[in-house]
Amino acid sequence: GERLFSASNQEIMAGWTTDIYFIKTREILRAMGLDGTEVTAEIFAGREGVLAGVPEVKTLLAGTGVEVWSLPEGEWFGEKEVVMRIHGPYDRFGIYETAILGILASSSGWATAARKCREAAGNKRVVCFGARHVHPAVAPVMERAAIVGGADGASCILGAKLAGQEPVGTLPHAVMLIVGDTVEVALAYQRTMPQGTPVIVLVDTFKDEAEEALRVARVLGKDLAAIRLDTPGERGGVTPALVKEVRARLDQAGYNHVEILVSGGLTPERIQLLSQAGADSFGVGSYISGAAPIDMTMDLKEVTGKPVAKRGRIPGITPSPRLQRIL
Amino acid sequence: GERLFSASNQEIMAGWTTDIYFIKTREILRAMGLDGTEVTAEIFAGREGVLAGVPEVKTLLAGTGVEVWSLPEGEWFGEKEVVMRIHGPYDRFGIYETAILGILASSSGWATAARKCREAAGNKRVVCFGARHVHPAVAPVMERAAIVGGADGASCILGAKLAGQEPVGTLPHAVMLIVGDTVEVALAYQRTMPQGTPVIVLVDTFKDEAEEALRVARVLGKDLAAIRLDTPGERGGVTPALVKEVRARLDQAGYNHVEILVSGGLTPERIQLLSQAGADSFGVGSYISGAAPIDMTMDLKEVTGKPVAKRGRIPGITPSPRLQRIL
Amino acid sequence: GERLFSASNQEIMAGWTTDIYFIKTREILRAMGLDGTEVTAEIFAGREGVLAGVPEVKTLLAGTGVEVWSLPEGEWFGEKEVVMRIHGPYDRFGIYETAILGILASSSGWATAARKCREAAGNKRVVCFGARHVHPAVAPVMERAAIVGGADGASCILGAKLAGQEPVGTLPHAVMLIVGDTVEVALAYQRTMPQGTPVIVLVDTFKDEAEEALRVARVLGKDLAAIRLDTPGERGGVTPALVKEVRARLDQAGYNHVEILVSGGLTPERIQLLSQAGADSFGVGSYISGAAPIDMTMDLKEVTGKPVAKRGRIPGITPSPRLQRIL
Amino acid sequence: GERLFSASNQEIMAGWTTDIYFIKTREILRAMGLDGTEVTAEIFAGREGVLAGVPEVKTLLAGTGVEVWSLPEGEWFGEKEVVMRIHGPYDRFGIYETAILGILASSSGWATAARKCREAAGNKRVVCFGARHVHPAVAPVMERAAIVGGADGASCILGAKLAGQEPVGTLPHAVMLIVGDTVEVALAYQRTMPQGTPVIVLVDTFKDEAEEALRVARVLGKDLAAIRLDTPGERGGVTPALVKEVRARLDQAGYNHVEILVSGGLTPERIQLLSQAGADSFGVGSYISGAAPIDMTMDLKEVTGKPVAKRGRIPGITPSPRLQRIL
Amino acid sequence: GERLFSASNQEIMAGWTTDIYFIKTREILRAMGLDGTEVTAEIFAGREGVLAGVPEVKTLLAGTGVEVWSLPEGEWFGEKEVVMRIHGPYDRFGIYETAILGILASSSGWATAARKCREAAGNKRVVCFGARHVHPAVAPVMERAAIVGGADGASCILGAKLAGQEPVGTLPHAVMLIVGDTVEVALAYQRTMPQGTPVIVLVDTFKDEAEEALRVARVLGKDLAAIRLDTPGERGGVTPALVKEVRARLDQAGYNHVEILVSGGLTPERIQLLSQAGADSFGVGSYISGAAPIDMTMDLKEVTGKPVAKRGRIPGITPSPRLQRIL
Amino acid sequence: GERLFSASNQEIMAGWTTDIYFIKTREILRAMGLDGTEVTAEIFAGREGVLAGVPEVKTLLAGTGVEVWSLPEGEWFGEKEVVMRIHGPYDRFGIYETAILGILASSSGWATAARKCREAAGNKRVVCFGARHVHPAVAPVMERAAIVGGADGASCILGAKLAGQEPVGTLPHAVMLIVGDTVEVALAYQRTMPQGTPVIVLVDTFKDEAEEALRVARVLGKDLAAIRLDTPGERGGVTPALVKEVRARLDQAGYNHVEILVSGGLTPERIQLLSQAGADSFGVGSYISGAAPIDMTMDLKEVTGKPVAKRGRIPGITPSPRLQRIL
Ligand SMILES: [Zn+2]
Ligand SMILES: [Zn+2]
Ligand SMILES: [Zn+2]
Ligand SMILES: [Zn+2]
Ligand SMILES: [Zn+2]
Ligand SMILES: [Zn+2]
Ligand SMILES: [Zn+2]
Ligand SMILES: [Zn+2]
Ligand SMILES: [Zn+2]
Ligand SMILES: [Zn+2]
Ligand SMILES: [Zn+2]
Ligand SMILES: [Zn+2]
Repeated sequence: GERLFSASNQEIMAGWTTDIYFIKTREILRAMGLDGTEVTAEIFAGREGVLAGVPEVKTLLAGTGVEVWSLPEGEWFGEKEVVMRIHGPYDRFGIYETAILGILASSSGWATAARKCREAAGNKRVVCFGARHVHPAVAPVMERAAIVGGADGASCILGAKLAGQEPVGTLPHAVMLIVGDTVEVALAYQRTMPQGTPVIVLVDTFKDEAEEALRVARVLGKDLAAIRLDTPGERGGVTPALVKEVRARLDQAGYNHVEILVSGGLTPERIQLLSQAGADSFGVGSYISGAAPIDMTMDLKEVTGKPVAKRGRIPGITPSPRLQRIL
Repeated sequence: GERLFSASNQEIMAGWTTDIYFIKTREILRAMGLDGTEVTAEIFAGREGVLAGVPEVKTLLAGTGVEVWSLPEGEWFGEKEVVMRIHGPYDRFGIYETAILGILASSSGWATAARKCREAAGNKRVVCFGARHVHPAVAPVMERAAIVGGADGASCILGAKLAGQEPVGTLPHAVMLIVGDTVEVALAYQRTMPQGTPVIVLVDTFKDEAEEALRVARVLGKDLAAIRLDTPGERGGVTPALVKEVRARLDQAGYNHVEILVSGGLTPERIQLLSQAGADSFGVGSYISGAAPIDMTMDLKEVTGKPVAKRGRIPGITPSPRLQRIL
Repeated sequence: GERLFSASNQEIMAGWTTDIYFIKTREILRAMGLDGTEVTAEIFAGREGVLAGVPEVKTLLAGTGVEVWSLPEGEWFGEKEVVMRIHGPYDRFGIYETAILGILASSSGWATAARKCREAAGNKRVVCFGARHVHPAVAPVMERAAIVGGADGASCILGAKLAGQEPVGTLPHAVMLIVGDTVEVALAYQRTMPQGTPVIVLVDTFKDEAEEALRVARVLGKDLAAIRLDTPGERGGVTPALVKEVRARLDQAGYNHVEILVSGGLTPERIQLLSQAGADSFGVGSYISGAAPIDMTMDLKEVTGKPVAKRGRIPGITPSPRLQRIL
Repeated sequence: GERLFSASNQEIMAGWTTDIYFIKTREILRAMGLDGTEVTAEIFAGREGVLAGVPEVKTLLAGTGVEVWSLPEGEWFGEKEVVMRIHGPYDRFGIYETAILGILASSSGWATAARKCREAAGNKRVVCFGARHVHPAVAPVMERAAIVGGADGASCILGAKLAGQEPVGTLPHAVMLIVGDTVEVALAYQRTMPQGTPVIVLVDTFKDEAEEALRVARVLGKDLAAIRLDTPGERGGVTPALVKEVRARLDQAGYNHVEILVSGGLTPERIQLLSQAGADSFGVGSYISGAAPIDMTMDLKEVTGKPVAKRGRIPGITPSPRLQRIL
Repeated sequence: GERLFSASNQEIMAGWTTDIYFIKTREILRAMGLDGTEVTAEIFAGREGVLAGVPEVKTLLAGTGVEVWSLPEGEWFGEKEVVMRIHGPYDRFGIYETAILGILASSSGWATAARKCREAAGNKRVVCFGARHVHPAVAPVMERAAIVGGADGASCILGAKLAGQEPVGTLPHAVMLIVGDTVEVALAYQRTMPQGTPVIVLVDTFKDEAEEALRVARVLGKDLAAIRLDTPGERGGVTPALVKEVRARLDQAGYNHVEILVSGGLTPERIQLLSQAGADSFGVGSYISGAAPIDMTMDLKEVTGKPVAKRGRIPGITPSPRLQRIL
Repeated sequence: GERLFSASNQEIMAGWTTDIYFIKTREILRAMGLDGTEVTAEIFAGREGVLAGVPEVKTLLAGTGVEVWSLPEGEWFGEKEVVMRIHGPYDRFGIYETAILGILASSSGWATAARKCREAAGNKRVVCFGARHVHPAVAPVMERAAIVGGADGASCILGAKLAGQEPVGTLPHAVMLIVGDTVEVALAYQRTMPQGTPVIVLVDTFKDEAEEALRVARVLGKDLAAIRLDTPGERGGVTPALVKEVRARLDQAGYNHVEILVSGGLTPERIQLLSQAGADSFGVGSYISGAAPIDMTMDLKEVTGKPVAKRGRIPGITPSPRLQRIL
């Protein structure tokens, strides 16, 4: 049958996802007898952020024999700061330029967005729900980067595993619609899930959230860990006033132990407002997964030991005391 | 050793990149004896654009036995328009919701950005140079989507192949810096590359672009297909005035046959301006590869033949005469 | 006991609500033997609008013996246009200047706002619900002016009567909260109200509006004339999407005859959007009742037959062919 | 003959200015045997301001037997703060909801605007000249509220009386135009008015203000208390430079005792600027009288002792320690 | 004694106002034997406008033997359009580059501003009153350029003469203040000035403009040609409302023949508004005299017959069919 | 032949550049026997700035016998502050009003702009290159005023001399284009110029600035004082990044002694940025020479010892302790 269009690890390692000009470069340098020229390359970032993707770069370059220095995974870097340096014969790593930059640019973009959510949420829980906006081949890359940036967990199975965690999540609107009643689903969830699984119930499918939250709390009692508010824009979205009122109605009815998980178009600004209103945890989607990549540039700064640079850049190695040898 | 973090085709097909709640959903529905419930789901888009990713979705669902209707690959869709409909037992496709939405959201985002470049460029050539901003696992997905959207070619090897093309590209600054002189590289390129490969030379590494363009044209003559302008921001970037002047100086020296390829931070607006100034082709990077995904939402609209919807949506199947049966 | 602070008809006619300077003016002119000086005064408006209040001015001046010309009640006037002219001995009407200007300024402000709602609503029904923002002494003045401007009805009893209509309205949230269930109230309403009273039920007190609308429709059937949406800002207010969905759900359940009355912060812009979404009538509050008065100015333009004016104004009578003799 | 359209005290007390739905409510509750249900209602404000109208509400509710708590007349309240609480059988006060809210909303709007003028004027005199923008039935309500908010006096006779003051004011342009010369009017004023009435003369009717001020000062000498500047927009309005110059010319001619009263489109910002330039008192019109009402909302928060609230509000009595029992 | 700092014609012709680098250039070219090199230079403008200063450039270059082509004096030119071309041995005209560019830049700036006033005024009279904002050495240059641009006259004696006109003007505030009364000055003006001099009287020195205009008209009758309004900002400046009222009061008193000349901060926008209000002529000051110079650039485009240009410009002579040979 | 249009010193002293109304004024006052009236006039500024032009005013008034007080040349004055006072018979100085105001307005405008560049540049060198934007008759006035304001030098010969300095400057693009190579010109400059002249070479004519700077440095070595960057807008202009890179490349090659002079569209903001990036001196053109004049107004404030003023101004002498007697 047909294949998916994403590249496998083997295809990437073999250089199949590189820009064609690095292949041409290798041929020309060979023809000129310059393919083994020792060079030093530096990678710097177009804007500040959190570095992510270093272990994948290490995997890519592990067998090439080049020397690599890098900022640590998860470190904050400044605009134009050098985040990685590679030294060795050019033909050992030139064909990986496209892949290395792509890994760092996209992973750091995701990690940086997660960091901003982390800061907005203080000590409260941030979970990445963004897998549905990216291709499944990179969903685990994205979720792992989000955890590097500061998310507490992720909903995609492989992404959570790669970060050494269990995936987290509740139930979608679909199951509610198939069963036809939120309370019935909640009871089935309680019966079916393994002992210890926290019961979190989505309460905006059929009824006003405050009403449904109380219905569910009445049947599950102490077994209800949290309710989830994911109110659609057509009903005003999740607002501070909604969170405050649901909190108050739960408390007045004696359900102070039930936490409130919010989701739907969250940004750092909205996380902060909803947290002040009483939300306990935050499911963040497109703010993380749709974050723009952070432009990464690789420049040759030395060729056979002599400082070089193209026009517009300063020749020679940039002093970067925070870099650490990783290969 | 270590693996890359991206998922293989097999992992995706096995549901490893799905959100955990679809797994839970399956278990609960089974416990309730509802797992085989016949449902109809619709996918609609948060903003208008070009649909891409349909073949991958077809690959995913091919063995499940569900019926699928879709807009054709490459079709323009409106805001909130239904782009795909799936009918069948819920447990046959529920676990693929995350993957399907991710494929369509990211591919359509890329295709739509490429379409806007296409429209700005009129009949001139647009090439996707954006692989360096995305993870290598999806670089081919992105480049194929760009071609669906209207790009004429792409630089990444696997991406071009998947779209049935040869990859296109010239040479990076790195080879210039290793060799030390643009003209020498140009001559080596001419000698080394197979007969028929168009010779395109990057002219902003060492010297003023107008001066370097003339130096290269003088040695290659009729063999020079194009020069590439990629002037860095530190030297003012590629501007209409620069393109006009280089064109005039080439023409005055008799090199009317030499085309001008421009790159560097291109957007549809800049493509239009540079095209008017005389540029012949356009290498587009982050405008395409950094395009935001187009939010896709899947809603159940019928359960066992009866119209349903969550609060905020209109129950029942949306009339969508443009959908075509694909499975 | 204590009185309310508003003035009675008698107090107004006696000049008790005039600015003190008109009293002083009368005394001084008398002392100078000039109190009977024949003058012509003109009233013009600071901005364009709908004229209202003419009958009250006529009542005020009826016994004074002066001649009065006016634009008709309900007529559109331009910025700086003369809307009324008074001719006669100054001491017959000077003390009413404050009252006349106040009547015209406030009434025209309300009528003009109502006209804009009228235009936004096309042929659909606009009802004034604004009594709660103005002092009860002027609530009937305001509602009558709204009807002059184009409202189809008003909720305040005396206001509607003065405009020759029955007051219109449904039931407040209070009765819902006292009874505890919307459906029970709806049934009582149906039983209690005189034959022929249209049954309109407010559906946002306890439950999601779509759910509550269907519950009420199921018990009242053909007897339900309309449901009213007045969703609070904390639940997103009344939006086009909400109206569309409630309409669709009512129609799918066979209640096409049930109309939708919307209220809550309506403006001409929102009226237009909600009308397009399917709303049938509009309850407008503060947009009408909180409308700013339209500044009215009275200038003497002739004294004993000779043109005069203060600095900044053009002496003599302004040609105003649209004025009609009313006294 | 005809009546004015404003309601008398008796009509208001009889419930004729209420919204019709409170009448219907009473009938339905009676039919259900629920009319005597004990409830607690709270009134809160849409934006912050100065509370006014409490004595009128007290008058309205005095005979009903309900218990009432309120912030004191003239107190500052915050956004959404509870300003009044009513407890008792619903049918004793339900029909007054419209009137109570209207009294508080409009009176507090006026008082709040006056307070801002007060703050801008520091220790200098602020007089309300706004009667000409409101219906004469509420002119005294407005002026009394302005004095509650901080105005030093008002020009409307009944308004001033209700606030326990004498009305204040000078002479209008009309008397100048009838007599034909400002100096002649000034002399007549001096002769005619009772001993002790401060002589304030308007100086912008015929001549440049500085010239006219000196003419009047020369004939009245020590008897001239103040001149009033009310320059029309067509002559640039009253500006800081005009005040400064008139002050300087009066002082150079030895009339340091003559004060300057300014009027015409004053706002807190303009009061502050004109005060710095040397103005001594301020006649404020439409800024106070055209102030938007402050939206007041009445919510039932307890029914027969149990906390309730409609969707969007938090059930139960809001802790409000600043409220004081008034009935 | 001391001299003024402005340069005489002789100093300018001798090259004393040139930038020092042209002197150095001459020495170096002589030392290299290149001083007689034949070159072609082009002058182009940074923004569009009206060309002025051509006769002075012709005077400067008349004896040098070079060939000169130019757009005609008073012609409209576009942005970047070539306005002048000079061909000949470089050392014949190189030292005049600074002077030529300065003449064209400042004169064209002034002429362009005058053109915009001309267009705003339609067929009405525009007079340049701007001498007081520029150094007296260039006042005549400025006024002549204003007339080239479209002004009807100028107030500075030498400027008017150079444009072949008589200077125009009325009387300043100073004479009013010395004499102490506008009417007395007007009578003296009528007695003293030669038969046929139009009598124009400034009416804003002491009294309200409308009052003073009528006083003057009453004593001069048919001999009064115009009054001038120059109201200071402290009195609101000259506004459309003021012009309309003065026009109306003059007409009502039978002085339809008296024209209205306005001045004070005029711009094309204000000219248009005041013209519509009835003003007959316009005295424009700083809008013309404070106009920014239009940047002019001189580029060598041929050296000994071969196209040249510095980086950023296109080599060779620009096709410019509108240029005409002037030397 | 033809003359230039600028006025000579003699023409200015003879009153030929005055506004015609001062001539008329003199005639009328003579006819009334008031020409010798003793008056006091004050000159004040429309906005704050640096006073320049005082010596020229002194030259103008030296023989008239009037008394003059002034702020010192180069002093900072505030908005509306009196900068000069003249006392004496009006006919001795009235005809110079236009010239005096023009001198002070334009000179102070230039001096103020130069002061802002001075402040932006700190201790670094600012040179005025603006002669090419003004008429050559005032180029020396402008450059002298720039030096009064704080410029270190000027390029125009007469301007520099009047300020007691040698003119400064390098070589224009013209000489480069005639010779055809920057290095050849640099060598000729070194050979030809007198011992001690600092060698400054413009490096943007043919090649990339960094490349050309190194070529010139290699041949001149220690004799190269500075390179000048004047990059045209078509190549991105002179940016901080360009300055930094050129500085770095010069330093890496051992040319730390070579300074960087920048020019081209400099403003105080750009001076500050380029200074931080490493520029050593600044050639400023149109920011100084195109600065708007600072409006100066002359008011009579005393006539024969009595305070006067036109409407809008305060009569009598303004206390101005900073004024000093200069005549
Ligand atoms: Zn090495
Ligand atoms: Zn939801
Ligand atoms: Zn089926
Ligand atoms: Zn490049
Ligand atoms: Zn009459
Ligand atoms: Zn409601
Ligand atoms: Zn009770
Ligand atoms: Zn007035
Ligand atoms: Zn020739
Ligand atoms: Zn004036
Ligand atoms: Zn004296
Ligand atoms: Zn240059």
